[in-house]
Amino acid sequence: MDELEKARQCAATMLANDNASKSLGIEIEIPNPGSAIARMTVTEQMLNGFAVCHGGYLFALADTAFAFACNAYDRLTLAAGANIDFLRSAQAGDSLVATATERNRGGRLGLYDVRVSNQNDEEIAIFHGKSYATKKPLLRDIG
Amino acid sequence: MDELEKARQCAATMLANDNASKSLGIEIEIPNPGSAIARMTVTEQMLNGFAVCHGGYLFALADTAFAFACNAYDRLTLAAGANIDFLRSAQAGDSLVATATERNRGGRLGLYDVRVSNQNDEEIAIFHGKSYATKKPLLRDIG
Amino acid sequence: MDELEKARQCAATMLANDNASKSLGIEIEIPNPGSAIARMTVTEQMLNGFAVCHGGYLFALADTAFAFACNAYDRLTLAAGANIDFLRSAQAGDSLVATATERNRGGRLGLYDVRVSNQNDEEIAIFHGKSYATKKPLLRDIG
Amino acid sequence: MDELEKARQCAATMLANDNASKSLGIEIEIPNPGSAIARMTVTEQMLNGFAVCHGGYLFALADTAFAFACNAYDRLTLAAGANIDFLRSAQAGDSLVATATERNRGGRLGLYDVRVSNQNDEEIAIFHGKSYATKKPLLRDIG
Repeated sequence: MDELEKARQCAATMLANDNASKSLGIEIEIPNPGSAIARMTVTEQMLNGFAVCHGGYLFALADTAFAFACNAYDRLTLAAGANIDFLRSAQAGDSLVATATERNRGGRLGLYDVRVSNQNDEEIAIFHGKSYATKKPLLRDIG
Repeated sequence: MDELEKARQCAATMLANDNASKSLGIEIEIPNPGSAIARMTVTEQMLNGFAVCHGGYLFALADTAFAFACNAYDRLTLAAGANIDFLRSAQAGDSLVATATERNRGGRLGLYDVRVSNQNDEEIAIFHGKSYATKKPLLRDIG
Repeated sequence: MDELEKARQCAATMLANDNASKSLGIEIEIPNPGSAIARMTVTEQMLNGFAVCHGGYLFALADTAFAFACNAYDRLTLAAGANIDFLRSAQAGDSLVATATERNRGGRLGLYDVRVSNQNDEEIAIFHGKSYATKKPLLRDIG
Repeated sequence: MDELEKARQCAATMLANDNASKSLGIEIEIPNPGSAIARMTVTEQMLNGFAVCHGGYLFALADTAFAFACNAYDRLTLAAGANIDFLRSAQAGDSLVATATERNRGGRLGLYDVRVSNQNDEEIAIFHGKSYATKKPLLRDIG
């Protein structure tokens, strides 16, 4: 099994039981190990009292891309923390895409950048996630 | 109208149109201006592929408390960014409470701390939010 | 050796070879394990082009308090990262104090809050540090 | 005066009175408006008790690049906050370079990424800064 195949198998295993991503309508793509693309359409239900997408859903989209990016190595890896900056608001109907890329991985810690943009390629949010790798295999553990 | 009454009126106005918080089952309490308490029960739909609450929902709860805390002054105030550290996982059925307190407010920027804990008062996440106040009134603007 | 004595011995061992803290004139106090207080006076040399203390020195003070707080357990512990918010500027002659407290410690990761204030107890900066514990003992390793 | 010339004039004006950067031996280059490159050699005086460069100096270098990048527009701009992740330690004699690039600028807030690397182009630290623009001109104000 090559590295990309392994990364995609990890993603498929995670996704199989992932109620949260499914209920948000998030779709996942793994372009290469350590990267992930997550897509989500903003629904009416995601709007806050200012009639724009609640920051929690923007974070959830970015965090999902991050989780799939850092779990590419068959080692159960957790989000230790994350930072998000909100640049533009998102409206109902917007098609958002979050692209996660690996910035650094060493020892048990990893750093990932996620860019959230809309259908006009305008930046909605910038996210930086820090991961912590456990010693548990992912494929056996969940599958 | 005193300060606490104003803060609560701002919260009521925001909440009236807040699909996102409602659909997550979040309840809001305003103990005093600049503070907010948000409560949410973890549902099956919030679980990720590792069978624990998706970080996005933990963030959404904290971010909601933050938004209600920083919008207490009848001035429409946005989240500029936030940082979250995940300390413990949350399970389905857990009753989570996010308590937001104002750490600093000067010029247009504000800093808020949010602590997310479960029914056993174990810390689930620590969140730090940075707000940016616009010049728009909130009560007239939304109401 | 009790826990406080051990924490203070770790601090003394670190400080013995710490050119950086010494050259900044930083003084350290260990009130209890997991906490540290660092004091520094702002000098002319620390001023930036706007005639206020360069943020790098404010960070250095906070980071020093953080390092001494998280190295209390005879286990060589590194700063994985930190976040700082600047609230007020500091002037030449100001007596700054950074107080680090442990927020969380679990597995290899720790979270520490640091508050930097001046001689009037005005908040200058708020710092949040994340530590990563190695498996090396500190007392034997350095001493 | 074109934009690049203005950015460089802002940098020269800031640098003229910048004791902090000078005393750290930092050199500044402005490749284009919104970007800045800062160089510094690690000295013995910058070493902490673990015989590696104190994180405060790494932060100071990155923060300096950030400050020069965000002050390119003749508008006095302050650091509101920053996040730094430490990836590798730096030793005495290392030639460090911090490259700041503008990630976003809108309203009064700006986001800047800074990469700190050594003479072998290994990443030492990743820094994200948030700036806040005042309404004061920089060239008249300082000069």
